[in-house]
Amino acid sequence: MNFEYASKSKELQAKLRAFIQEHIVPVEAEYIAFQQNPENLWKRWEGMEKLKKKAKQAGLWNLFLPKDYGDLSPGLTNLEYAPLAEIMGEKIWISEVFNCSAPDTGNMEVLAKYGSEPQKEKWLKPLMNGEIRSAFLMTEPEVASSDATNIETSIVLEGDAYVINGRKWWSSGGMDSHCKFAIVMGKTDFNAPRHQQQSMVIVPMDTEGLRIIRPLSVLGYYDSPEGHAEIQMTNVRVPKENLILGEGRGFEIAQGRLGPGRIHHCMRAVGLAARCYELMIQRSLERETFGKKLFQHGGCQEMIADSKADLESARLLTLSCASAIDSIGPHKARDLIAMIKYAVPNLAIRVIDRAVQVHGGAGVCSDFILARALASMRTLRIADGPDAVHKRTVARIEVNKSYRHSKL
Amino acid sequence: MNFEYASKSKELQAKLRAFIQEHIVPVEAEYIAFQQNPENLWKRWEGMEKLKKKAKQAGLWNLFLPKDYGDLSPGLTNLEYAPLAEIMGEKIWISEVFNCSAPDTGNMEVLAKYGSEPQKEKWLKPLMNGEIRSAFLMTEPEVASSDATNIETSIVLEGDAYVINGRKWWSSGGMDSHCKFAIVMGKTDFNAPRHQQQSMVIVPMDTEGLRIIRPLSVLGYYDSPEGHAEIQMTNVRVPKENLILGEGRGFEIAQGRLGPGRIHHCMRAVGLAARCYELMIQRSLERETFGKKLFQHGGCQEMIADSKADLESARLLTLSCASAIDSIGPHKARDLIAMIKYAVPNLAIRVIDRAVQVHGGAGVCSDFILARALASMRTLRIADGPDAVHKRTVARIEVNKSYRHSKL
Amino acid sequence: MNFEYASKSKELQAKLRAFIQEHIVPVEAEYIAFQQNPENLWKRWEGMEKLKKKAKQAGLWNLFLPKDYGDLSPGLTNLEYAPLAEIMGEKIWISEVFNCSAPDTGNMEVLAKYGSEPQKEKWLKPLMNGEIRSAFLMTEPEVASSDATNIETSIVLEGDAYVINGRKWWSSGGMDSHCKFAIVMGKTDFNAPRHQQQSMVIVPMDTEGLRIIRPLSVLGYYDSPEGHAEIQMTNVRVPKENLILGEGRGFEIAQGRLGPGRIHHCMRAVGLAARCYELMIQRSLERETFGKKLFQHGGCQEMIADSKADLESARLLTLSCASAIDSIGPHKARDLIAMIKYAVPNLAIRVIDRAVQVHGGAGVCSDFILARALASMRTLRIADGPDAVHKRTVARIEVNKSYRHSKL
Amino acid sequence: MNFEYASKSKELQAKLRAFIQEHIVPVEAEYIAFQQNPENLWKRWEGMEKLKKKAKQAGLWNLFLPKDYGDLSPGLTNLEYAPLAEIMGEKIWISEVFNCSAPDTGNMEVLAKYGSEPQKEKWLKPLMNGEIRSAFLMTEPEVASSDATNIETSIVLEGDAYVINGRKWWSSGGMDSHCKFAIVMGKTDFNAPRHQQQSMVIVPMDTEGLRIIRPLSVLGYYDSPEGHAEIQMTNVRVPKENLILGEGRGFEIAQGRLGPGRIHHCMRAVGLAARCYELMIQRSLERETFGKKLFQHGGCQEMIADSKADLESARLLTLSCASAIDSIGPHKARDLIAMIKYAVPNLAIRVIDRAVQVHGGAGVCSDFILARALASMRTLRIADGPDAVHKRTVARIEVNKSYRHSKL
Repeated sequence: MNFEYASKSKELQAKLRAFIQEHIVPVEAEYIAFQQNPENLWKRWEGMEKLKKKAKQAGLWNLFLPKDYGDLSPGLTNLEYAPLAEIMGEKIWISEVFNCSAPDTGNMEVLAKYGSEPQKEKWLKPLMNGEIRSAFLMTEPEVASSDATNIETSIVLEGDAYVINGRKWWSSGGMDSHCKFAIVMGKTDFNAPRHQQQSMVIVPMDTEGLRIIRPLSVLGYYDSPEGHAEIQMTNVRVPKENLILGEGRGFEIAQGRLGPGRIHHCMRAVGLAARCYELMIQRSLERETFGKKLFQHGGCQEMIADSKADLESARLLTLSCASAIDSIGPHKARDLIAMIKYAVPNLAIRVIDRAVQVHGGAGVCSDFILARALASMRTLRIADGPDAVHKRTVARIEVNKSYRHSKL
Repeated sequence: MNFEYASKSKELQAKLRAFIQEHIVPVEAEYIAFQQNPENLWKRWEGMEKLKKKAKQAGLWNLFLPKDYGDLSPGLTNLEYAPLAEIMGEKIWISEVFNCSAPDTGNMEVLAKYGSEPQKEKWLKPLMNGEIRSAFLMTEPEVASSDATNIETSIVLEGDAYVINGRKWWSSGGMDSHCKFAIVMGKTDFNAPRHQQQSMVIVPMDTEGLRIIRPLSVLGYYDSPEGHAEIQMTNVRVPKENLILGEGRGFEIAQGRLGPGRIHHCMRAVGLAARCYELMIQRSLERETFGKKLFQHGGCQEMIADSKADLESARLLTLSCASAIDSIGPHKARDLIAMIKYAVPNLAIRVIDRAVQVHGGAGVCSDFILARALASMRTLRIADGPDAVHKRTVARIEVNKSYRHSKL
Repeated sequence: MNFEYASKSKELQAKLRAFIQEHIVPVEAEYIAFQQNPENLWKRWEGMEKLKKKAKQAGLWNLFLPKDYGDLSPGLTNLEYAPLAEIMGEKIWISEVFNCSAPDTGNMEVLAKYGSEPQKEKWLKPLMNGEIRSAFLMTEPEVASSDATNIETSIVLEGDAYVINGRKWWSSGGMDSHCKFAIVMGKTDFNAPRHQQQSMVIVPMDTEGLRIIRPLSVLGYYDSPEGHAEIQMTNVRVPKENLILGEGRGFEIAQGRLGPGRIHHCMRAVGLAARCYELMIQRSLERETFGKKLFQHGGCQEMIADSKADLESARLLTLSCASAIDSIGPHKARDLIAMIKYAVPNLAIRVIDRAVQVHGGAGVCSDFILARALASMRTLRIADGPDAVHKRTVARIEVNKSYRHSKL
Repeated sequence: MNFEYASKSKELQAKLRAFIQEHIVPVEAEYIAFQQNPENLWKRWEGMEKLKKKAKQAGLWNLFLPKDYGDLSPGLTNLEYAPLAEIMGEKIWISEVFNCSAPDTGNMEVLAKYGSEPQKEKWLKPLMNGEIRSAFLMTEPEVASSDATNIETSIVLEGDAYVINGRKWWSSGGMDSHCKFAIVMGKTDFNAPRHQQQSMVIVPMDTEGLRIIRPLSVLGYYDSPEGHAEIQMTNVRVPKENLILGEGRGFEIAQGRLGPGRIHHCMRAVGLAARCYELMIQRSLERETFGKKLFQHGGCQEMIADSKADLESARLLTLSCASAIDSIGPHKARDLIAMIKYAVPNLAIRVIDRAVQVHGGAGVCSDFILARALASMRTLRIADGPDAVHKRTVARIEVNKSYRHSKL
């Protein structure tokens, strides 16, 4: 056991931090002004493509894809990637610079793992090159999608095509003009056993019958330019070759996809909370009430100290989970993945919420990252499965362990 | 002691509910569509003036102003007003219909209590008639305004005029085209004893030198059309008759103003939480996961039960504080006012946050009132004084009580 | 609605406080020394009978029994009794002085409500006179008794007698030498519908076959002299006249008994928390760290302020529930009774736990009431039904209300 | 970074577990029966010395003393010791078997680090051999000892002797008949700078003038046979050679002593919480309410899942702190030591409290370790410095880091 980052990992962190300092910090104000201007809603900031190019040249590209994927991967383990994702997470918007943003990372992992060669050629390659972006269409407005067996979009084979009908929402990234395809989850067989009804299929965004209904806001934020789309699919036809892996294997793919996606969320959440923690301390040094700096007030000290412990817990839980995925694989580590999915956002919320409070009015407006961070983390308690579902998973696995153990 | 509303109070509640059912519910969808459309940012919805006219005719007007104000007041006590404010609070936007919205209520109370006859004639009258709206300029971006002695805007007498220089923010209502004047707090004497440096002065919004810098968002919401403005005042000149009460009496007025303002916030907070609680239960009846309705899951049952207790606590604390203000006055009840100012928003947040969670994705977007309610309540932990300041007040009063008692 | 105690209620409170000041405070140190001396375990303190005599003479006797019981009752409503029970609750041990202690109060109410005339003559009369004490035998060690249908003690009619077999525990008061009878819950018909299997029967403690196995401790306290007993009943025979109300009516009686019992617990809990709150403030005035009195530290101020709000919530919830029982009866108010049963102990724990923390080491030892108060309140989250059961009850009632409402 | 225990560490864990299984488990019931019998209060259980002998033979002895101490130490790092202390902590009473119990471990470290050769020969040697036990006298009843500068016991040099006067309490271990000496903190110079007034001196327990006033209970438990003593010292004379390190160096020693002592507490706390967590799961498998096993209820599942995350956080925080002490030393790691001192007991309390709740009545009595675990962990939020003091320390260090950083 050892809590120091390996030197390779430290070097990568330094390299990433240097890149951000050199290339991103100087244009950050420009980006933020662009992004916060209501007139630019759903427009992409021009600077992004330049930054992506530089990141690719610097070798800071696709770092998320674990070394198990051979040539496709830059060769990092999950544990090596974790602190890098954390650094990217400190600023909500920069994962894209390194082609490491959701939902693309999950989609790339799906295609790399389960995609056919033609699918890889056509969709994975441009995605890994950062030429296009993608969406993942799972959640539906009409059913409680936290139980994924409820999902009701139909995917019916007619001749050489799958015909898709259904309504999806919370299709993150779906508003982005660069978004070129979606992976859609739906039922190919309504009469199969519960976990074999679902399949996943690739749907180009410009397919006839696919219509974006509206963007959804999260606590008032549209998260432009990616956004969160509500999408109607009416008789959407795609070639049958667009099916991933096989009919009825949607749950299998979902398990493979969601594990990495969830830990990536947690890594970034730790970075975001860490940034808010720094802001809290800084503000407590600057402002004064009742004759004392904020940090000299006992209540503020407790906020700092509690946040430090919450932040360290969140980080250690996430890192230990990444390490477990590396050593025993995502399936055996699924209890840890589920555990951090509820534990980390809740810890992050506690840290960020205190940072908001210490900032007063400045904490809830757009002058700092704090308010958007709070909105984002609050949403993460729901996205990719609400707390209750992951707690249920953990409890069931834990009870089973104990049950098996008690029978020996 | 008696926990039943008096029959007069019940009748008023029924009357208000009937009015809402008859006049507001039928146009609510129209209002919401207008308000959520980004194109209508900072525009006023036409229907509002019609609704105001009907409310005035129905006698549901200025209900907030306690009967101590004689002819100006419709004659209710704080305890009678509380359940009415709660009902208005269920829908975030309708207090204005009844001329009962912040910050106007506080400003009307200031002018009614401390204003000169000409001030009443010129500013209070149209405000009470709902012809104009107003703002309250206290908080400043450059200092921790939770300690109001930090406020640094200068108000200097030059000849017949006060000349005002300073930057304010969180001027709620300041973006509204109906907003015609602001009450501004600032220092007339930087060398006076700490609590006699500040004064309040009436400033018409169209005065030269007063410039709206930008609207502030709260967790992504602009709260159009009222908004929260950042405002620069550079050599703003107003006639010296615009001074309220006298130089150096700003704190005295603030105390008189903020007490009622705070309890009104709490009353509406209870209503908002109550509405979200109802939505939570309703959703738990409609949706199903893992073969059971949500309400049949133990975790959901705990959320409902905990919320019921939190909601009842928030309501009873607020009502008992209103009752105390009626019987012993706001000054003697200032410990209770301070107490509910931190207790009630925190209780409301707990209820609303659970309601959000039960709704899943629907909870964070704009399909329900939930997300905006959460943003609004989170902000209320900061607005009109952050939790820490009110807790400090309560602790000091409690300790003093005990200290005096222990010396007897 | 009105939050002032009625003058009759205030007079009674003053009378009770005066009695305590005059008769109890002077002997309190003596009682505590006796009670804390390990040599006196399971002995009764001599002074108790003298105090009881004085209380009876002063008319401060059996105050708990509501006026619905006619001549048996001293004539108070639940709302009038609440602040009196609160005052008694400030000191853990003095309810007995006024013949108002659990489980006797519940047992008296059962016998007054459901007892036959001979049962009243034989058991209720001496209990109401304070000549004897009693126990209530419901919970069993072998089953999760929070679901009372699990209870498995058998009560079988053989000729003129009921024969009882089973093991009970948490028989509070069962260790007291004055305890002369127990009301026992058990199954008279294992095949009846689920809620008609149980009956209640009166069992004299000296009946052959009834054996006290051991006293149970709660977080280290034995609560002598009453104690909490584990009791084995083997072929215990009692005359069939000892059956209360009728076979299969155990649940009906339990509902009637437990409501009042639960609100009495909550009333006393409020008093205990109030006392600990006072101690916290007093300690914060006396002790000094880092150059400041404790109450001058921001963290301590937050503890005081949060506790004030928690305490007021607990009190208002309890009083409003008492008022509801008076006006609509315990059955219709069962949602409120269930609600305060989880809400109030949890609020009290928060207050007491902070008071412990402010006292440091003195908070966990026996120098103050704090540690025992914490143990007692922690246990109350389990006694008379754990939180989970009452939350389930509240959620089900709330959902049903909403369901019925939504169908109209 | 690596979250697997090293193989040496795993072997030691297996060895320790095997020892416990072979030698302790078979006599555990006997020990518990002895310890819980009120007649055995302050008696030592005979079996202890036999177990100690076996542990010493097995080389499971003094494992706590880090390898920096050369020949005195069995050669483990803090990180290697941590999981062993955790295993010992699972059962509250067995650390003594391995000569690893507080306050002896801290005292041994003091003498090993700061003791003179004669002090080592006379006191450290028998302590490390397990022939005697010891106490640490710091906290005083008359002052808030969380600010150690408040301590007022006087240590005055008179000729060849130090004369000690003062009252101490919470002298853990002081009731044990094996306790042969105490390390006493007090003031040798009341006029020196604040942190140079205090010194530490060795006082044999049988010195004239040292009198045990009474044992203190923690939430009802006496923790026999060690106990927590209140001790009066009146003109207690010890040879001046008994002074440790030098006059005025008490704070320096305290810093060196308390760091290790605090992390040992946390390691054992993790073990205790882990044990309670196992019990919670087991109970949830055995008991049934409302037609379902407890673990099938959603509320219980949430308790399990939350506890899993809390437990893992507590463990990782503790292990990472141990690792930091190994690599950068206790002084540089003092922020982490302070952090775990408040974070870990609070996390442990949450786990244990839920386990208590799942057990119902069985959770608060002595049938399981749960109630005593709760009492013990609640006390740990106060012992060795209350939460507030450690939070203050962490906040000040964090703010300083940031301040220095912001000046670069």
